[in-house]
Amino acid sequence: MSAETVIAIDAMGGDNAPAAMIDGAAIAAMRFPGAKYIFFGDQPLVQSLLAKHAHLASRSVIRHTPDKISSDMKPSQALRQGRNSSMRLALDAVADGEAQCAVSAGNTGALMALAKFALKTLPNIDRPALAGTIPTTRGQSLMMDLGANIECDSENLVQFALMGAILARTVLGIQKPSVGILNVGSEEIKGHEEIRTALNILRERPFPGHVHGFVEGNDLGAGTTDVIVTDGFSGNVALKTLEGTAKLINHFLKSSLHASLLNKVGAWLAKEAFMNVKRKLDPRHYNGAMLLGLQGLCVKSHGGTDAEGFASAVALAIDLVQQNYIDHVRKELERHYGEANGTAA
Amino acid sequence: MSAETVIAIDAMGGDNAPAAMIDGAAIAAMRFPGAKYIFFGDQPLVQSLLAKHAHLASRSVIRHTPDKISSDMKPSQALRQGRNSSMRLALDAVADGEAQCAVSAGNTGALMALAKFALKTLPNIDRPALAGTIPTTRGQSLMMDLGANIECDSENLVQFALMGAILARTVLGIQKPSVGILNVGSEEIKGHEEIRTALNILRERPFPGHVHGFVEGNDLGAGTTDVIVTDGFSGNVALKTLEGTAKLINHFLKSSLHASLLNKVGAWLAKEAFMNVKRKLDPRHYNGAMLLGLQGLCVKSHGGTDAEGFASAVALAIDLVQQNYIDHVRKELERHYGEANGTAA
Repeated sequence: MSAETVIAIDAMGGDNAPAAMIDGAAIAAMRFPGAKYIFFGDQPLVQSLLAKHAHLASRSVIRHTPDKISSDMKPSQALRQGRNSSMRLALDAVADGEAQCAVSAGNTGALMALAKFALKTLPNIDRPALAGTIPTTRGQSLMMDLGANIECDSENLVQFALMGAILARTVLGIQKPSVGILNVGSEEIKGHEEIRTALNILRERPFPGHVHGFVEGNDLGAGTTDVIVTDGFSGNVALKTLEGTAKLINHFLKSSLHASLLNKVGAWLAKEAFMNVKRKLDPRHYNGAMLLGLQGLCVKSHGGTDAEGFASAVALAIDLVQQNYIDHVRKELERHYGEANGTAA
Repeated sequence: MSAETVIAIDAMGGDNAPAAMIDGAAIAAMRFPGAKYIFFGDQPLVQSLLAKHAHLASRSVIRHTPDKISSDMKPSQALRQGRNSSMRLALDAVADGEAQCAVSAGNTGALMALAKFALKTLPNIDRPALAGTIPTTRGQSLMMDLGANIECDSENLVQFALMGAILARTVLGIQKPSVGILNVGSEEIKGHEEIRTALNILRERPFPGHVHGFVEGNDLGAGTTDVIVTDGFSGNVALKTLEGTAKLINHFLKSSLHASLLNKVGAWLAKEAFMNVKRKLDPRHYNGAMLLGLQGLCVKSHGGTDAEGFASAVALAIDLVQQNYIDHVRKELERHYGEANGTAA
């Protein structure tokens, strides 16, 4: 890897592409003056958008890509037909070592399939996982898998826990992160056999954090552990239920606060407080799911993101690169599986 | 079944037993003057509590039970050691036809095991399911399974959908309820094979409602369907994530509204609106999970419930009895499996 941080950006993915991608990168570029950018997309379009941001344009190059991955394309189609797409070529740039992390707001299924194909999994990793941050009363926690793997065996979960612990150290700055496995009860007799086995393995082998045990759905918001490990089905259900509940409460608050003049006046006086809560729950601040377990880095931004949200995703990408996330994971996997093999022999 | 509504109450289950149970039944008895009650528990204790409520005492009997099921007892222990417990004897009263529905705020795992043993499953039902109501922007939806069955096959899910549709008709008064199966994407190619098969079966066989298709976690709060069907693992995770997110937002709001004097004044003026939202999200108003698929009825109240919450659970029990829930389910199962067998031959 070069000492320089280079981010490969899929300029054509997401509902607000390419404007939100270029404007977002411009925001991130203010915060990280050292990084460089390669934009993959429609050359004239990207060029005209870059013209607005001299500070970004001076450290960016554009690669013209004739195709893009549409939001309704199936992963298999993306693999077959997407060879010249902006998404695929951004990932190839990471595979070739030209860039260290790809960022895309495009089709999630296609991105996972293309990333897995282009970047290959790390040694000791069976399946990559999608990880993301969630808001908690203690700040933020990381959860994975959010939907890349519908069914997971115990080794998959153990690998997610390892990658998640290193991620918490890298992204949240927690030296000894606590890790919980999502279950339906905190008693250790409950749950699938896979998750009970995963917990036993985590407790036996070397682990770069504190193995808390099982957690339940309500522990997500409470922030009981820094990392929550689960299969992609439950993780996706939990994440979307969290988002849906926030919308539901917002709906209840809005209609209640408009029910009487007194309530309206109160709401107006307290509007700063409401804005503050809204900000804390704003998915744009938690923007950027990470595809973990590959030999290169890839950040998935929300499809409906605006420039501010995309800037968060780019900032996350730069952070992962500069903190050498992959090297740390690689070492920890060697330590975990190396010693595990050793004691088993 | 007798024409009279008789509810069997486990007076010794739950954190606030037996006071909350007797006071709760007293509230319910005001609303349903026709129903009668059998209390199972410590005779002198229950008697002294009943003395406060003449309207309830006059239509109640007490059965002294020497034992109770503790909150930490495992289901297998409850089956072996709980023969003379208040919970078990309340269920036996339903099995014997003395009462039509049992209500308990005790140990959920024990209740499910004892109910399954005492009440037996209905014909065509492989496994009973735990169902509950959740708040939505449209009002309420019903979700099942909430944790009785960690792993479910497609027939289990189909049976949950049938029981859920009839429940929505009975409890929510919706003639043609819409039913969705929880998945990680609304595209029909996604998800486990079990849930895809379940959806196909629901679309092929006679169904007492509208088969909407797949729903995702965010559809819960949105109220996209009247009924959400899922396995007990995902259902439990979703329900507890919903509760945890409500607590998280409450925490954010409280700390933000106390951050400045202006915010505090606004919050005070708008306090009626906050109380209104709190009421809408108050689990006590959604109190009473229902164990479906057995030859008798059983309502599970929240373990930490107060009298008001327990009253909701008792009211729900009376509603299920008076609307002949079990008869309707029995007929619908016959129609579904009868015609399904017919067309398959």
